Amino acid sequence: MKAKSGEFKVENYSLELRTQGFCDIHDITDAGREKVASSGIQNGQAVFFAVGSTAGMTTVEYEPGLIQDLKVFFEKMAPQNEVYHHEETWHDGNGFSHVRASFLKPSVTVPVVDGKLALGTWQQVVYIDFDNRPRTREVIVQVLGV
Amino acid sequence: MKAKSGEFKVENYSLELRTQGFCDIHDITDAGREKVASSGIQNGQAVFFAVGSTAGMTTVEYEPGLIQDLKVFFEKMAPQNEVYHHEETWHDGNGFSHVRASFLKPSVTVPVVDGKLALGTWQQVVYIDFDNRPRTREVIVQVLGV
Amino acid sequence: MKAKSGEFKVENYSLELRTQGFCDIHDITDAGREKVASSGIQNGQAVFFAVGSTAGMTTVEYEPGLIQDLKVFFEKMAPQNEVYHHEETWHDGNGFSHVRASFLKPSVTVPVVDGKLALGTWQQVVYIDFDNRPRTREVIVQVLGV
Repeated sequence: MKAKSGEFKVENYSLELRTQGFCDIHDITDAGREKVASSGIQNGQAVFFAVGSTAGMTTVEYEPGLIQDLKVFFEKMAPQNEVYHHEETWHDGNGFSHVRASFLKPSVTVPVVDGKLALGTWQQVVYIDFDNRPRTREVIVQVLGV
Repeated sequence: MKAKSGEFKVENYSLELRTQGFCDIHDITDAGREKVASSGIQNGQAVFFAVGSTAGMTTVEYEPGLIQDLKVFFEKMAPQNEVYHHEETWHDGNGFSHVRASFLKPSVTVPVVDGKLALGTWQQVVYIDFDNRPRTREVIVQVLGV
Repeated sequence: MKAKSGEFKVENYSLELRTQGFCDIHDITDAGREKVASSGIQNGQAVFFAVGSTAGMTTVEYEPGLIQDLKVFFEKMAPQNEVYHHEETWHDGNGFSHVRASFLKPSVTVPVVDGKLALGTWQQVVYIDFDNRPRTREVIVQVLGV
């Protein structure tokens, strides 16, 4: 494969999401594609980063059944109504949100190959808001490469 | 530490894997090392990315006991024979595969330092196929840096 | 947004941590900030990478309650006293450490925007040592960009 080299560029974009909390899952793939196109970068990577400690990022086949399955799964993994020590610190009732977010982690890196995100056909990038109230959230989409 | 600078390069490689599904774990460390060497890149990073929504990527000490432990663990976490809402959408029986994949996530980033992947001695990069049938899968190994 | 371009640089830093094992959680955010500042890189990314197969990396609101919650959570997910096949290979009693580490994964990528890590106010980068004994561990903080 031919090496892609040239002038390196970084483009930092910020997305604003209105979220409902309680495992609210947002497909941000199209926004990511648009940022990659707008960057003009042909080869490199896109980093999707959830700013804040009660949200996470992953990929999934975005269809209603799986969205429901993920909610069930996260509830099983870190139930909302268990007792969390976090409550002793802040009394804001979102210990489950933090544990889920730390577990899923805030970033996903997707290679950019020939100007496109190298995702599978049924693979979407999703932001998952785990908090316990509606919020306005920030996602950074960073595209870097040549 | 001396800064490494110079002409930035990106190399995108594609690996083809024949997988059996059901938590089939493939050690792709040597393939990654080969791609790093072939890229000529001395400092930067290697991104290992699983294309598709029923596989994930992580690191592990690749030895038969732990391979077995991971299978047991993923089965406990998202059992194959539970009821998944995904089934209502596609009837393909792999809801458990999707949930496991979304949870493990598709990429691992490893720094490249002085021409080598900065892995520990007992730390291998593995692709885990969670699907429920044999498949031919694509992994992107992207090496970028100087 | 204006593209940031210029001479690409990579800086690889190594942190040494003294860890106690058993889900010992270290806040390495300040060390990361110091490395970003010292690199002089204004836009790009910082990769935090745990060398070795019994530790992981994530972000969390670093406060005593959540630190305790994460310990409880990992113990529930992969209990220390279950039987692990890893034991048959090495007899070192840390099967639970490996499973937790593979699940959490070794790296976190944080965008660097205008010279700063793009973390939320209550979002810290943490290294989690899952091993079953005190150790001296290595973390790579790699800053790359322009």
